[in-house]
Amino acid sequence: MIECLVNGEISNFVETSNRGLNYGDGIFETLSVHNSRPRRWQAHMDRLGAGCERLGMTMPPQAVLLREVQTVSAGLADAVVKIVLTREGQGRGYMPVMDGSCVRIVSAHLYPDNMAELARDGVEARICELRLAIQPALGGIKHLNRLEQVLASAELQRSGASEGLLLDQENYVISAIAANIFLVLEDRLLTPRLDRCGIRGVLRSQILLGFGARCEQRRVTMDMLQEADEVFICNTVRGIVPITAVDMQNYPIGPVTRELQAWLHEGSRKQ
Amino acid sequence: MIECLVNGEISNFVETSNRGLNYGDGIFETLSVHNSRPRRWQAHMDRLGAGCERLGMTMPPQAVLLREVQTVSAGLADAVVKIVLTREGQGRGYMPVMDGSCVRIVSAHLYPDNMAELARDGVEARICELRLAIQPALGGIKHLNRLEQVLASAELQRSGASEGLLLDQENYVISAIAANIFLVLEDRLLTPRLDRCGIRGVLRSQILLGFGARCEQRRVTMDMLQEADEVFICNTVRGIVPITAVDMQNYPIGPVTRELQAWLHEGSRKQ
Repeated sequence: MIECLVNGEISNFVETSNRGLNYGDGIFETLSVHNSRPRRWQAHMDRLGAGCERLGMTMPPQAVLLREVQTVSAGLADAVVKIVLTREGQGRGYMPVMDGSCVRIVSAHLYPDNMAELARDGVEARICELRLAIQPALGGIKHLNRLEQVLASAELQRSGASEGLLLDQENYVISAIAANIFLVLEDRLLTPRLDRCGIRGVLRSQILLGFGARCEQRRVTMDMLQEADEVFICNTVRGIVPITAVDMQNYPIGPVTRELQAWLHEGSRKQ
Repeated sequence: MIECLVNGEISNFVETSNRGLNYGDGIFETLSVHNSRPRRWQAHMDRLGAGCERLGMTMPPQAVLLREVQTVSAGLADAVVKIVLTREGQGRGYMPVMDGSCVRIVSAHLYPDNMAELARDGVEARICELRLAIQPALGGIKHLNRLEQVLASAELQRSGASEGLLLDQENYVISAIAANIFLVLEDRLLTPRLDRCGIRGVLRSQILLGFGARCEQRRVTMDMLQEADEVFICNTVRGIVPITAVDMQNYPIGPVTRELQAWLHEGSRKQ
């Protein structure tokens, strides 16, 4: 971590009574920031707003968040900035103060340096044994209850694979551990519906927006994954990463994945 | 909060990189402490150990935790002490360091003052609309991913009821929001199996131990709840609290609930 602001003040500390710490009562965003300009800012703010609404927290003004993102990333050509919002509140007990204010934690981190290789060469994945719980009340939002992702990452580490795919308790394909997934079947793009678990990624949303006519959000089965011509994962930091294998099955890095990578690259240059 | 130790030092702060804050990557215990003696200490330590093992964290020595519990509650006749253990680790990303050490956060809080009335008069409950997700990987342990309990508490607040009962996604009865539940059917005690969600409460475990021959852990349906002669909830701070109504159905405070309360009272006096 390079620099951190807590409620606008330089600090690396939050109170032990913080509800994010005690209950995971909050949400977060991870942004890619280039020369003090956060990429896909409005999309991140829209998702943060949706998360605040779902949990019943009042979102801080976007201008305040933007200033803090720019402050922590000042002087860095490329940075990853994390915004954490936790529900304000003291005292022991689950009962929240609804529609109250948030604690803001905004921190800058070094940008990972192997992004170009990942995008070019892709990664091999395995299906994690852990199954995501189905919880419509929390599905889609980027909340702070992430033990499933921690356990899936630990599983991946033990297996030696470089990426993990997650199914839900009913064995539908949901996502990678920290990225969304798209399947290419002929000319169509399929991506899982995220109404019951998973996070609606900002880059996923932009792909759905940019390629709407060719995209379909649906329940994705393992059969569909096996029949896919191409598979890729995406998130805001790593961009679009081809999946070259899932367990024993190999996938080519195909033309549709390369088309979307070119579209993403073009969009980034314009921003 | 009265006093707090972080890794043994007096402090009300943890680092913003703390994995408990960022992912809920940790566990907790809530203890009832009387004149510096934590009640049911070994049972709490056993559950903490089970949680550490499940998440792949190394549990701090019990003697260290006991000393810290006694330090924060020194001078208080009655206190609630919370122990939070979060996985040690820096950096952004879900990947955990397995079998590494924990950050210890031990804090003392005032004991609530209406416990005797609750035990005597009981509470009315309603069935929450929120359904608990089914996640066997996390079922039973007292981990820090508690957004479901926060949302259920918010729901309860809106409804004006004083206690909420939680069902899982398959509509089995699991628990109250922050307490376990027992049904009395004739002379038998039924309590939900907590292998897929819920927390294995320390007082629940002691009741199972003390009344083993009359107890059954099983999937509990709404039908069974409706047929129950008596219903009570229990946790380590509130003790055994009769449920006098669930939505429109009333329950008497019956002889078995009173028998268990007397047993608990006797046990507390002996400790």
